[in-house]
This record gives sequence, C-alpha cells and structure tokens, in this order.
Amino acid sequence: MNKSLITTVPFGSQNRFPLEILEANNIEYIINPFNTKLKEEQLLELTTNGIDTIIAGTEPITRKVIENAKDLKHISRVGIGLDSVDLIAAKENGIKVSYTPDAPAPAVAELTIGLMLSLLRGIHISNSELHRGKWQRHYGKRIAEITIGMIGIGRIGTRVLRRLKSFGSPRLLVNDVMPNLELNREFKIEWASKELLYKEADLITLHVPLTQKTKDMITAKELSMMKPNALLINTSRGGIIKESDLYDCLSNNHLGGVAIDVFENEPYSGPLSKIDKCLLTAHMGSMSIDCRTRMEIEATEETIRFKKDLPLLSEVPESEYKVQTLFV
Amino acid sequence: MNKSLITTVPFGSQNRFPLEILEANNIEYIINPFNTKLKEEQLLELTTNGIDTIIAGTEPITRKVIENAKDLKHISRVGIGLDSVDLIAAKENGIKVSYTPDAPAPAVAELTIGLMLSLLRGIHISNSELHRGKWQRHYGKRIAEITIGMIGIGRIGTRVLRRLKSFGSPRLLVNDVMPNLELNREFKIEWASKELLYKEADLITLHVPLTQKTKDMITAKELSMMKPNALLINTSRGGIIKESDLYDCLSNNHLGGVAIDVFENEPYSGPLSKIDKCLLTAHMGSMSIDCRTRMEIEATEETIRFKKDLPLLSEVPESEYKVQTLFV
Repeated sequence: MNKSLITTVPFGSQNRFPLEILEANNIEYIINPFNTKLKEEQLLELTTNGIDTIIAGTEPITRKVIENAKDLKHISRVGIGLDSVDLIAAKENGIKVSYTPDAPAPAVAELTIGLMLSLLRGIHISNSELHRGKWQRHYGKRIAEITIGMIGIGRIGTRVLRRLKSFGSPRLLVNDVMPNLELNREFKIEWASKELLYKEADLITLHVPLTQKTKDMITAKELSMMKPNALLINTSRGGIIKESDLYDCLSNNHLGGVAIDVFENEPYSGPLSKIDKCLLTAHMGSMSIDCRTRMEIEATEETIRFKKDLPLLSEVPESEYKVQTLFV
Repeated sequence: MNKSLITTVPFGSQNRFPLEILEANNIEYIINPFNTKLKEEQLLELTTNGIDTIIAGTEPITRKVIENAKDLKHISRVGIGLDSVDLIAAKENGIKVSYTPDAPAPAVAELTIGLMLSLLRGIHISNSELHRGKWQRHYGKRIAEITIGMIGIGRIGTRVLRRLKSFGSPRLLVNDVMPNLELNREFKIEWASKELLYKEADLITLHVPLTQKTKDMITAKELSMMKPNALLINTSRGGIIKESDLYDCLSNNHLGGVAIDVFENEPYSGPLSKIDKCLLTAHMGSMSIDCRTRMEIEATEETIRFKKDLPLLSEVPESEYKVQTLFV
C-alpha cells in the first residue's frame, strides 16, 4: 500500500490526534527521519517509491522532486506559504495541492506583536545585558506613539491590526497589491506607497507571501530609505529581505533594531546572530500549540479526504497558480 | 538659595523640558552625580545642606535621611511607588510628599504584555539560542488559550487587562485587597483567592505596591503551589517575590519561565542571570519616552508649585500614609 510522507517536524508531538486519525483510517505514514527541514536531495530520496501523499512543511518541493516522485498524487501543506511548492510542475504532473491558510494566522500575528514590543522596549537587549551582568535602563517607545508601516494586509496583517487596537492609535501606513478598503471602516489606515512607508515608518512589519515579486523586496536601497532608528520585523518568509544587505546595514549602525523569524536558509546559522540588536527566533510564527495542532489536523484531514476519494476542502485556489505562472 | 536635588537618573536626557522649566523658574538644581540609584549613605551626603526639595527616584528616603536633611521640605516622586519613602517620618518632620501615580501606568502595562508574549512564545529563549548558533523551534501558547492570574488590579493592572482585550478571551483570575466590581461590566473576571490563583493560573502577573503586607508575598510555599509550567511576571516592585526562593525553585526546574523587571537590590547582579528561562529587564516598566517625560514633567511642575507656594496638585493621599502606619 502507498504511504503518506510527513515532512514537517515536529508533528503530532504536542497532540497525537493527527497521527491517530491517520491510523484510524488505515493510512500508513512515515515521519521525516532526518528530524529537520529537508533539503532537495533528502526529499528526492524519501519520495521515490510508494509515497502518494505528502503532509508537507516548507522544504523545497521542486519540479525535480515532483517529476521524480512517480507515485505522488497529493501535497497537503501544513501552513499557508506556497513558495516552497512548484505549483506549475505539480499541476503538469496531475498532483493536487491543498493548504491550511487560516490556521496559522492568529499565532503569527501574536508573535509579531511580541517581537514589536520587544523591539520597542529593548526587552531582548536588556535581557542579554543582565545575563552578562550589565545593568542599563533603556528608553523605549509605546505603540501609540509611533508610525507603524505594514506591507501586506491579508489574513495575518489584518490580525496584527486587530491586536494593535487595544494599544491606542499609532499612525498606520499600509501597503498591499490588493488594498482592502473595507478595513477603513474599522481602522484609521493610510494606504501608502512602499517608498512613503519606508521613509516615514518607525516600525515596519512584513506580511506578504514569498513570490518572484516579493523576493528581495527589501535590499540595501530600501533599507537606506528607512529612518536611522527604524525597527523592522519579518515573520513572513526569508528571502523577502536580502539578508546580506541587512547584515551590512546593521553593521553600519543603520536601523534601531530588527526581529527576524524567517530566513533565506533554515535552520539559520548566519552572521545576523553576531549582532545584539537582531532579535532572532527559529521560524516560530505558527508555533502556538493550538494553531499548530489545527494546522496539522486540517492538513491531515485533507490527506485522508484525498485518499478516501472525498471532495477536497482546502485546495490551493487558481489565483495562487497565477501568481507563480506570472513570474516563471 | 536652596536647591532642588534630582536623584532619579536618567532625567531630562530624552527631552530637556523639565530642566528648562526649572531654569525658567529660576530654580537651582543638582542632578545625582553618582548617575546610578543612590544608596542611603550617598543620599545622606547629598541632602545635608541647602536641599529643600527632591525630585526623587526609588532610592531609600529613610527616616535617617529625612531627619538628617535639615532644609528638606518637599519630596516629589517621579513615579507611583512609595515604598522607598518613609511617609511617616516625612509627615513628622513637616515634609510634604507628592507623586505621579498615573503617568507610568501605560508604559508598565505595555512592557508587561511584551514580557507575557516573550514568555508564552519563548522569544527570549530562541533569541539566546540563535545567538549561540542553536536552531530549535519551540512550541508556545496564545493568550486566548491560557488562564491568566493577576494580583493587583489598580491603575496598571486595569491597563494590562485593557490591552489583553484584543487577544481573545483568556480565563482571568483576579485578586486584590480592594476588588473593583465595576470591572465586571467590561471584562469576564473571576475574583479569586490568592491560593486558587496560584494553583490554577498558567501565567501570573503582579501589579501591587510594595508594602509590609506584600513584602515576600511569594516565597517557596507560594511558588510550590503553582503549576510546574506556570509563568510568572513581576513588573511591580522587587521584594514582593523572595528572590532566593525563586532562584531555588527555578534551579529545581519548577515553573516554565519568569520575567523580572524589578529586584530586591537594584542595579541587580544576582544569580537569576545564570538561568536562561529568566527573562530579565533593568526596571524599565516606566521607561517609554512619553510616559517617562510625562512623569518627569509632572514631578518637576509639582516641585515648582511647592517652591512658588502654589497649591500642590498631586500630593500623596492620606490612604497611602495609612498603609504605611498600619504595618510600622
């Protein structure tokens, strides 16, 4: 019998329920034996024979992987990002792709607010200093006192806005390729060009998918437009900020601080870790137990539906294929 | 001419306005030359001659200091806490005391939420790990999913509650010597005994003044009642949690994490800094530029009013004297 390959780790470790429902439905599975984000070669090795479905993390499901995986028929992404899946190659090879777009959003939004408050008040700086025996009281700013720039105002960005509501009224500069003017009923938003936002925001937070259009969206040029003490947060995807440019910028003491949860290459082991005012977390946006469990269950249910020939409930919509087609 | 002594540091460093208004009113002043929180001996030395007013931080204004400061007539606390001032001795020596009870509250509340999100999502843990080259994705919890215990629901506690509002509906266990049942109109609160709160809360945050009654409120006994993975935050005053007991408790791997902004002795240089899951900040609750500036201006205005024989606007109320009298 064909098996499901679960690539994302950890999986079912806080709550075994998704594994239980696979077992209850007599679906055999293999969990990523490398116990880390898979590289293309590892994925090629794991998907050769008898793997018909993947319950997938963010590892690169490239054309090469897809064409090599002869038995593969369905990919169920645990999460929202589709930058790791070659949707066009999947379609050409008759492989359906599903995802869990809503489940991670509350957890990512909440981590973003946590990073925002850490940056604004120097929590991470003071913590490092005190653990090294240094006592220094740092001035910070409150959310209501600053101008916040948000790029991307979809599922996650909107939830960040909602959580900001109880902190007073910062000036809000928002940019998106598809502005949602309905939000103006609920929030005092200024729709702003990226350039205006880079120049005027005290804190910039990114909530866009990684596509050919957003790749390297923020390079040395954009960083240099930002205020000398601007704060920058990325909980979306690595590759949207060019890491080497960010490192150079911080080394030259431009920007007040950055919080980075996502990296060009994960697990991350690059030079940003040498800079104290870089607040770094290990791609933990979706890692609240409740959201993670919901993502794992939703993705697993979709795999079961596929294997039982039931109608799929969260197939990736046509618009996502268009985004990839446009830039191939 | 008599001078004002400004003991709290930093002062006027982000915004010189409070110094300007002293100068505009021809009030001579000295700023704490030690540039750190004063000890009793230093304060004795600085207040001997010609100091009629203090614009005070949290240094110990003891009976000895008060009786020694022959020219002292007014103390203007930059902040809300009065644990550092012997109010009874001040009254007996005809010294008036003012404070700024409202100004710090928004900044303290916001730092508290920041510490809460760091503890819940392991932001500080992951940041330390990544700066040491270790990549590990930690599971966390969202605010809406936990039971929050709050001890003290005055100016700061209430503002913490308000900011929690936009994060969903955690179970809220609240304890105070003076419950404010009006809050039940706005929040779904369970008024709880301390014992119930210690036993059932996933996260406990303290917003009480330091008095003889709250000193050592949380010792080994109370810590042992808490859940093995409970989180504990103190942004109120050092001394409310017995630090040596907290250190022992964490060394024995009880509690999931703690965030401590205030210490028995400041500047802090104790053993909590050896424990990774202690998130430590340097008494930065009030240190947002806007709140700090407001505190400095309010305290300075009060000093000017005193020196000009104008009616004082924020004298410490009689109830605060009672709190100290009761426990002398």
